[in-house]
Amino acid sequence: MASRRVPRYLERLTPVNEAIQIVTSRVKPVEETVEAPVWEAIGLVLAEDVRAPHDFPPRPRAAYDGYAIRSSDTPGRLRVVGEATIGKVDVKYRVEPGTAVYVSTGAYLPDGADTVIPEEAVRREGDYIVVEKEFPAGKNFDPVGAYVRKGQVLLPRGYVVTMLDVAGLLDVAVTRVKVYRPISVGIIATGTELFEPVDPAEAEQRILRGEVAETTAKLIEWAIDRYTPWTVVEERILLPDNVDTIAWYLTRQMRHLDLVILTGGTGPSDVDPFYQLAEMLDGEVLFRGLFVKGGRPTSAMILPGGPLVLALSGHPVSALHGFIRLVYPVLKHMGNVVRGVEPPLPAIAELAGDIRAKRPQPVKVKLYLEDGKLYAEPLPLERQHSSVTVSNCEADGLAIVENRQYQRGERVPVMIYREPGRKEGEKREEA
Amino acid sequence: MASRRVPRYLERLTPVNEAIQIVTSRVKPVEETVEAPVWEAIGLVLAEDVRAPHDFPPRPRAAYDGYAIRSSDTPGRLRVVGEATIGKVDVKYRVEPGTAVYVSTGAYLPDGADTVIPEEAVRREGDYIVVEKEFPAGKNFDPVGAYVRKGQVLLPRGYVVTMLDVAGLLDVAVTRVKVYRPISVGIIATGTELFEPVDPAEAEQRILRGEVAETTAKLIEWAIDRYTPWTVVEERILLPDNVDTIAWYLTRQMRHLDLVILTGGTGPSDVDPFYQLAEMLDGEVLFRGLFVKGGRPTSAMILPGGPLVLALSGHPVSALHGFIRLVYPVLKHMGNVVRGVEPPLPAIAELAGDIRAKRPQPVKVKLYLEDGKLYAEPLPLERQHSSVTVSNCEADGLAIVENRQYQRGERVPVMIYREPGRKEGEKREEA
Repeated sequence: MASRRVPRYLERLTPVNEAIQIVTSRVKPVEETVEAPVWEAIGLVLAEDVRAPHDFPPRPRAAYDGYAIRSSDTPGRLRVVGEATIGKVDVKYRVEPGTAVYVSTGAYLPDGADTVIPEEAVRREGDYIVVEKEFPAGKNFDPVGAYVRKGQVLLPRGYVVTMLDVAGLLDVAVTRVKVYRPISVGIIATGTELFEPVDPAEAEQRILRGEVAETTAKLIEWAIDRYTPWTVVEERILLPDNVDTIAWYLTRQMRHLDLVILTGGTGPSDVDPFYQLAEMLDGEVLFRGLFVKGGRPTSAMILPGGPLVLALSGHPVSALHGFIRLVYPVLKHMGNVVRGVEPPLPAIAELAGDIRAKRPQPVKVKLYLEDGKLYAEPLPLERQHSSVTVSNCEADGLAIVENRQYQRGERVPVMIYREPGRKEGEKREEA
Repeated sequence: MASRRVPRYLERLTPVNEAIQIVTSRVKPVEETVEAPVWEAIGLVLAEDVRAPHDFPPRPRAAYDGYAIRSSDTPGRLRVVGEATIGKVDVKYRVEPGTAVYVSTGAYLPDGADTVIPEEAVRREGDYIVVEKEFPAGKNFDPVGAYVRKGQVLLPRGYVVTMLDVAGLLDVAVTRVKVYRPISVGIIATGTELFEPVDPAEAEQRILRGEVAETTAKLIEWAIDRYTPWTVVEERILLPDNVDTIAWYLTRQMRHLDLVILTGGTGPSDVDPFYQLAEMLDGEVLFRGLFVKGGRPTSAMILPGGPLVLALSGHPVSALHGFIRLVYPVLKHMGNVVRGVEPPLPAIAELAGDIRAKRPQPVKVKLYLEDGKLYAEPLPLERQHSSVTVSNCEADGLAIVENRQYQRGERVPVMIYREPGRKEGEKREEA
């Protein structure tokens, strides 16, 4: 029951920023929140500011292995009445005049003590320590609230919790956080030519006969796991170029998801399901065709009462480029993310060759370090074509460039998938 | 049964490069190899060069949606006798004079055709296409061997297989690779004060009482999973500061592993198990104490007939620094890695403040992007102390610096754990 007419051919390609703007203005960020132990919140997005529930440390804490004493007893000979190591909690010792308690780094100071004298600064004689000089109060311990003050904001809303944050929060007794529920994603690889390889010998024969081992959707799943951990890929499947089947899957099996990513279009043609799906399912097309190289299949629609659907190229690197340019910012928006984790483009490299780009595009590059600088050397043009997927093996990363000419020496953001080589090291390897 | 005398106190701290040299000269890289389907080899290390087993494509392949024809028939009116789309394998059509076969991108050309004319360049009239002009041979298809030649090295020995390599190799029918077996690792967090948090409310009370929720070993496990995927963490456990127990665990439960990482030393003291373990187990101490900030507990020994043991600090960030400086290069060596995946220090940032470092050390930094440049602004000195783990939440990454003074504007390698902010964006967030 076709209710919307969607033109078969593209009228224009949509610039990236405009596409992001269109999609994010029509798709609402997730609202549901859950309370989670911090150690289960890694990768999730904070739904409110995390505030310190206590001054920390709640009691003065030894910053050094040594003896908790009263400074007024120094110089002097003090009797060691016990020890308060960090493993032993609820120590009942009190530092009375003329006595000392051994403390290890991180242990709470026993009552009565006003300073910690380092182990190396005293002479031990049986149950006694000898302090030769006067030793001031207030040394070698962290006072109450030294690390955080009650009510202080430790992490703002919209930040993604990292493993290092967990270490920081648990250290000051923050054990619970409020996070948004993860964004749910389904990925459908479309293409009658595709198969999921199982047996290597059989897979080899099938590829030689012209079938295609599916890798594009797998690559997108990998990118989501790596760069948008607030997102869960609930399902990844392969379907043939049968629009009825894809429509059935979208509406019956994936309606409850937040986002479905289709991979496999190569551009508007009889086998491109996007415009047919939009008509069949009364989808609201947000844009069709992104103004990037290989971006003709990149499109977006919202299904009535269902998920956002983003279509990406069937070529692995073009799809990954679509992920970096479009899916990543859209998933940040959907997840309420202000600051994510290490992003897809962590580094800037200096070009070791020229690039002429008619559209924004990924350029396969070799990466190398020299004198602490990262260089990106584009593969030759004939190895850049999207059909030559095997040239991924020659490259170490993707330079992400805009539609203009670049000169050797200019700086470009890079996605790194292989450790950069060393200029000299490379030569040694080859020798 | 003490058989080696190991001095209790450190005589000197070992510089990083010397420590790496000592360890790698005494520990043999893994030798066992396995053959694996390429899609199961992601993260593993190639044990031999991967060579193309075939010319690819093995037959000419359409590079465009269009019609496979004989150029000598143009200009002319040609009868379309069938189609060879990429999903349909073993097409039996032959392009006889006066005929054409519809081909989609990636489909093998039917015999008889010598060129592909794009869909848009012809006029379709029922079962016929009309080609107005002469059309040369050899257009719009990739000839045999266009992507790779039989025998060509696609990936060298010692490279770690990435998801993008898998896409590249499967595209040219390479379905099997020979890889080294993964390095097996155990992690023991030592410390009587430690506990594994389970219930958030209970954990909060225990931390306030002075117990410590274990995060250091977890952080090292995270780093191994992320940066050295050729390594498998077989087990991570907590043990109290009981040398007999740690010795028993090392020799009875972890003897079969390649590497055991101990976390939890804070420096030579009564509760530092390293030197006692070396004596008890007749371990060959390779070095004790690394010349980096917080590096006194960082040590290495080889157990007789057992694993390499690396000890790291109990402080999360100091241990992570030990991972970056020492464990990472040692694991590259043990795994025969020439080129790994995206490394712990992918980027170089420009310092937005001075640093004075007496030893090589990690410096917690805020990261921000401005005009396509990455800046690192060190946290104030009092937030850098290893006891203030909570300042992880204020930082976005770690600058890894050497023992010297750095001026604002100098460039340093950074480990990024949070997406850098934008200078203007930050202001907007705060407003």
